[in-house]
Amino acid sequence: MKTLIPILLVSTAMTGAAFADDLRATALEQFKPLPSTVPNVADNPTSPEKVDLGRALFFDPRLSASGVFSCYSCHNLTTGGDDNLETSIGHGWQKGPRNSPTVLNSVLNEAQFWDGRADDLKAQAKGPIQAGVEMANTPENVVVTLNSMPDYVAMFGTAFADDAEPVSFDNMARAIESFEATLITPAPFDAYLNGDDTALNDDEKAGLALFIDKGCSSCHSGVNVGGHGYYPFGLVEKPGADILPVGDKGRFKVTETVDDEYVFRAAPLRNVTVTAPYFHSGKVWDLKVAVQIMAESQLGEELSDTETDQIVAFLGTLEGAVPPVTLPTLPAETASTPRPTAEVK
Amino acid sequence: MKTLIPILLVSTAMTGAAFADDLRATALEQFKPLPSTVPNVADNPTSPEKVDLGRALFFDPRLSASGVFSCYSCHNLTTGGDDNLETSIGHGWQKGPRNSPTVLNSVLNEAQFWDGRADDLKAQAKGPIQAGVEMANTPENVVVTLNSMPDYVAMFGTAFADDAEPVSFDNMARAIESFEATLITPAPFDAYLNGDDTALNDDEKAGLALFIDKGCSSCHSGVNVGGHGYYPFGLVEKPGADILPVGDKGRFKVTETVDDEYVFRAAPLRNVTVTAPYFHSGKVWDLKVAVQIMAESQLGEELSDTETDQIVAFLGTLEGAVPPVTLPTLPAETASTPRPTAEVK
Repeated sequence: MKTLIPILLVSTAMTGAAFADDLRATALEQFKPLPSTVPNVADNPTSPEKVDLGRALFFDPRLSASGVFSCYSCHNLTTGGDDNLETSIGHGWQKGPRNSPTVLNSVLNEAQFWDGRADDLKAQAKGPIQAGVEMANTPENVVVTLNSMPDYVAMFGTAFADDAEPVSFDNMARAIESFEATLITPAPFDAYLNGDDTALNDDEKAGLALFIDKGCSSCHSGVNVGGHGYYPFGLVEKPGADILPVGDKGRFKVTETVDDEYVFRAAPLRNVTVTAPYFHSGKVWDLKVAVQIMAESQLGEELSDTETDQIVAFLGTLEGAVPPVTLPTLPAETASTPRPTAEVK
Repeated sequence: MKTLIPILLVSTAMTGAAFADDLRATALEQFKPLPSTVPNVADNPTSPEKVDLGRALFFDPRLSASGVFSCYSCHNLTTGGDDNLETSIGHGWQKGPRNSPTVLNSVLNEAQFWDGRADDLKAQAKGPIQAGVEMANTPENVVVTLNSMPDYVAMFGTAFADDAEPVSFDNMARAIESFEATLITPAPFDAYLNGDDTALNDDEKAGLALFIDKGCSSCHSGVNVGGHGYYPFGLVEKPGADILPVGDKGRFKVTETVDDEYVFRAAPLRNVTVTAPYFHSGKVWDLKVAVQIMAESQLGEELSDTETDQIVAFLGTLEGAVPPVTLPTLPAETASTPRPTAEVK
């Protein structure tokens, strides 16, 4: 775990070009603009065929036992790549344990899920499909489902031409990862990092300076302004049990190390303005309140109203453009496609 | 109610150009190709702004009380414009009473719902949003929700510039209707009706001839091959209670006329190959079985295996291309947006 060191105290009295260049230079030490091309994914070389297959799978409700939920249900691309719910509602109207994180730019996170228990998106994609409170399906039933539709068999055959058995649960996950890797959302902050001074207004720049100065960027840094590194929620002061429920010990469940109790991956903050409610518990709807809670619990800082507003203004510059996604037409079921079941086991 | 008259006995012995022309001429007496432009909707002149707004609303899960369901949930444009479930699953995991019909080409139906209780799509759109087992919302809460998001207020203002109060439940429905009117899916059968002999193969043509000859087209006619006219399910012989549950008396609930017991609107058959399961009860998954049930119950006809296959082949030519739909980016919630609730009242 990193120690919290306020890396640079930006003088907010600095003005003009020198300030602008200094702020950008400092920002570039902590953050990275999004790449201009689809990121390469380890062990999963992309191809247009794989992306097309992944898009189809991402939207396919038949990956769930009930036929009601697809990846898109909780990672809705029209509303910031998440579902805007406290925690997701899944199979049998069950509530999931944690807030659904955005799929946008998620390929650039160091690890997936709030506790980082999946190394990458292809590991992540297999989780919700099998979770009893989410899509409640089994790998076996998924493979039977996919094999029952000749168009899917053909698409897998093309996307995984070198595989002896192209249709598999693993290849399903690989294709979904390839599609999700395309969901990169360049934002005004990227334009700023890339050299465009006009991309951020004065309040947003002041917010950026505060974000660094106060120490937020000690954890929320890198290309996704977070999404890597693990930190206790309540490093300085534990928030209330409404926001940090005692039953969810975070990364402790992954590592079984006492030090990891209530430890979570620092949330990636791109598109945070459109992914309320906040925190793994999804209990806070107001971004301003979320920023104040973070400052107090993680940094022991009491932010003024203006400071909070400026940080929120800066966070707004992380809201990017979702690439155009055209809905696929999915393969039709056949007589051998397993029937959906709403039954809760 | 129309009487069932087999309108023409096509001689299947006819061959060559004369047969081809005769079959098309006969078909054109019963069916109409899809229009080449977006159909005009009564009392709801379209505009690009209205269509854009309608697209946003169609995909917006915040029109439901829970924040889980949008129009798209049960009228999924990736799977034939319906949900491929027996009957839809909605708020609180409740099962709806009837199979979800496809939204594709639905603007061309004479009336909406299985019992025709809505005159048009703008009347239809208001139903599921308020139904307790579907989206479980209220018009008041929808209007508060829409008014809470400045981007929606602006979109309504542009789309309904002449209205004193642009944001309203009625205008929401009008915009959704305008978007849905664009979901027209030209199919091989349209190419055939438009003069392309090669659009249908011999089996498909034989199926078309049988479809007319046996009397199917007495009810399933017009531009949507159905979607207008009301007929008792089981005109000649009632199907079993599994397929025609005694509790659902169909149009009787609309007209309260004894003659309308178990009367339903003839289903529009465009895209029927991708909208299983079939009938208002959604109990039949196999199109071949559905065709045989129809022949027996409505026409007293026992179809041979070959005849059924040919009719199914013809129905396959009604499967059309869904126009490309690019996902909208929806307005973000604000502090005054009503919070989603999963509670079942």
